[in-house]
Amino acid sequence: MSLNEFDFIRRYLQAQPQQDAVLLGIGDDAALVRPEAGEDWCFSTDMMLAGRHFFADDDPADVAHKLLAVNLSDMAAMGARPHWVLLSAALPALDETWLAPFCQTLFAQAAAHGVALIGGDTTRGERVFNITIAGTLPQGRALRRSGAQAGDDIWVSGVLGAAAAGLQHLTGRIRLPENLAAPCVAALRRPQARVALGQALLPVAHAAIDVSDGLLQDLGHILTASGVGADIDAERVPCLPLFKKALPADAVWPLLLAGGDDYELLFTAAVAQRAAIETLAAAVGVSLTRIGRIRAEAGLNCRLNDGSPLTLVRQGYDHFD
Amino acid sequence: MSLNEFDFIRRYLQAQPQQDAVLLGIGDDAALVRPEAGEDWCFSTDMMLAGRHFFADDDPADVAHKLLAVNLSDMAAMGARPHWVLLSAALPALDETWLAPFCQTLFAQAAAHGVALIGGDTTRGERVFNITIAGTLPQGRALRRSGAQAGDDIWVSGVLGAAAAGLQHLTGRIRLPENLAAPCVAALRRPQARVALGQALLPVAHAAIDVSDGLLQDLGHILTASGVGADIDAERVPCLPLFKKALPADAVWPLLLAGGDDYELLFTAAVAQRAAIETLAAAVGVSLTRIGRIRAEAGLNCRLNDGSPLTLVRQGYDHFD
Repeated sequence: MSLNEFDFIRRYLQAQPQQDAVLLGIGDDAALVRPEAGEDWCFSTDMMLAGRHFFADDDPADVAHKLLAVNLSDMAAMGARPHWVLLSAALPALDETWLAPFCQTLFAQAAAHGVALIGGDTTRGERVFNITIAGTLPQGRALRRSGAQAGDDIWVSGVLGAAAAGLQHLTGRIRLPENLAAPCVAALRRPQARVALGQALLPVAHAAIDVSDGLLQDLGHILTASGVGADIDAERVPCLPLFKKALPADAVWPLLLAGGDDYELLFTAAVAQRAAIETLAAAVGVSLTRIGRIRAEAGLNCRLNDGSPLTLVRQGYDHFD
Repeated sequence: MSLNEFDFIRRYLQAQPQQDAVLLGIGDDAALVRPEAGEDWCFSTDMMLAGRHFFADDDPADVAHKLLAVNLSDMAAMGARPHWVLLSAALPALDETWLAPFCQTLFAQAAAHGVALIGGDTTRGERVFNITIAGTLPQGRALRRSGAQAGDDIWVSGVLGAAAAGLQHLTGRIRLPENLAAPCVAALRRPQARVALGQALLPVAHAAIDVSDGLLQDLGHILTASGVGADIDAERVPCLPLFKKALPADAVWPLLLAGGDDYELLFTAAVAQRAAIETLAAAVGVSLTRIGRIRAEAGLNCRLNDGSPLTLVRQGYDHFD
């Protein structure tokens, strides 16, 4: 069934529960919110295009999940509490069979994170989505990329490489066994933004980033911003249990160290914080793994357990490759 | 010349002057800003697609101008002071011959309005742009659509219909004489957001909206939100001097009353404010015209000077028509 634009806004977008702090939500020229004293605000934006970030025939619920998750992940990487999102959507038609599951998943995930949709724009075109997300932090406390210090441990949450392996499996570049394909495709389609972890890290982490474009490339951003270098123990980088057995060695390392779409948190913290970090990992229910150390000397060395260096042709994803 | 993504960000996006209130601009997972006490924040977002909102071969400087102007216009319609923008861009390539004039115009206009680009996202694809804009207002003072009161004058800034006539001229649906085509095409390509006017209206206007989708449709949003009706004197609606002479009568009214892309401010205010409004119009250098009155009874009547009703097949632009 096809809707007109105003029916769509009324039926789907204005139907969500309003939060108290939203003075004015969807339906005016702009949304209005009132900041609280002592807060910093942080903002991020991500665009997703059919054929590039998702397949045109992907389940609309998966598209909605990922669209919000990648934005929530940016808030997580700052240690911020996400509050508001604005959604722009180009759609070929206002087709309820597509929009109903898209909106249902978007709003369910938003509600689970206490996030409200406060504005947007819709237009006709090939499917493109853009979310801008705003969150809050205690003043001066954000986890920046620039805070890493020599001697820090380097930590990463969850497992890496699964989403990139899932994408290669779906596009036929690799063939995963069924019991590995399922979690890898799930990692690709339903990434879990580490929002609670990000906030829990505020007192202990020195620097953080979310791993969206590949571990080594994203770690490189921390190193550049902080003016430091790093040594990584490649074999400590966490992956799914069957990952290294099921894949040829020449596929494992590029996926694990340079695959994109992980949306795990990569952060650095003083050695003295190890026990505190293990406690908070248990509290938020996310596994955390130490994969290396920050050093004063620039550069990024990645070694196997036998000490041999591991070098990759590409360290991550270039959005214009 | 083609750039990689990080060169592009460094050369164009991080080169702009930083504002003091930006704690952290482009180059981290999210931007950080610090709200001031006593402010409300307002947010709006707009997506523009090649082939729908602009032509693929349009001058990149014009595309940049309009992209920012439509977002500034939403701030103007709230009476807000614009501060920050986030830009997402899908581009076929990082082609400097296209990007240099695009960025130059975008940043020049942003600087003219005191606005900083604090974040964004770039990806490869057919050209799509999305801007999210954030502005501030004194607490509780925003110009909403819902404040119109019976007896209010209805005012509009500038002239209407020119941008829609410019579009029809460029697409060959109408043929404008040269001395009318030039200002109409300029109105289409270089709309002037009424940012100073919007802020000046805060003490006097009851309700406001920007005319983006056609006068009658946008006025309809004020009427619905305010639970009132309106009488419009069609012949008072301001247009360019040659407009009615150069165009056949059956083209004039749809363009003037239902053409899109004007980005003028439509607002209501008490009759007692007429002198104050004329003073502030002179102060901000924008012409303002009274075009009708708000009434208690629902409905929207639009009449010619002889009292005959003017009815249009369409009252404005549906983004999914």
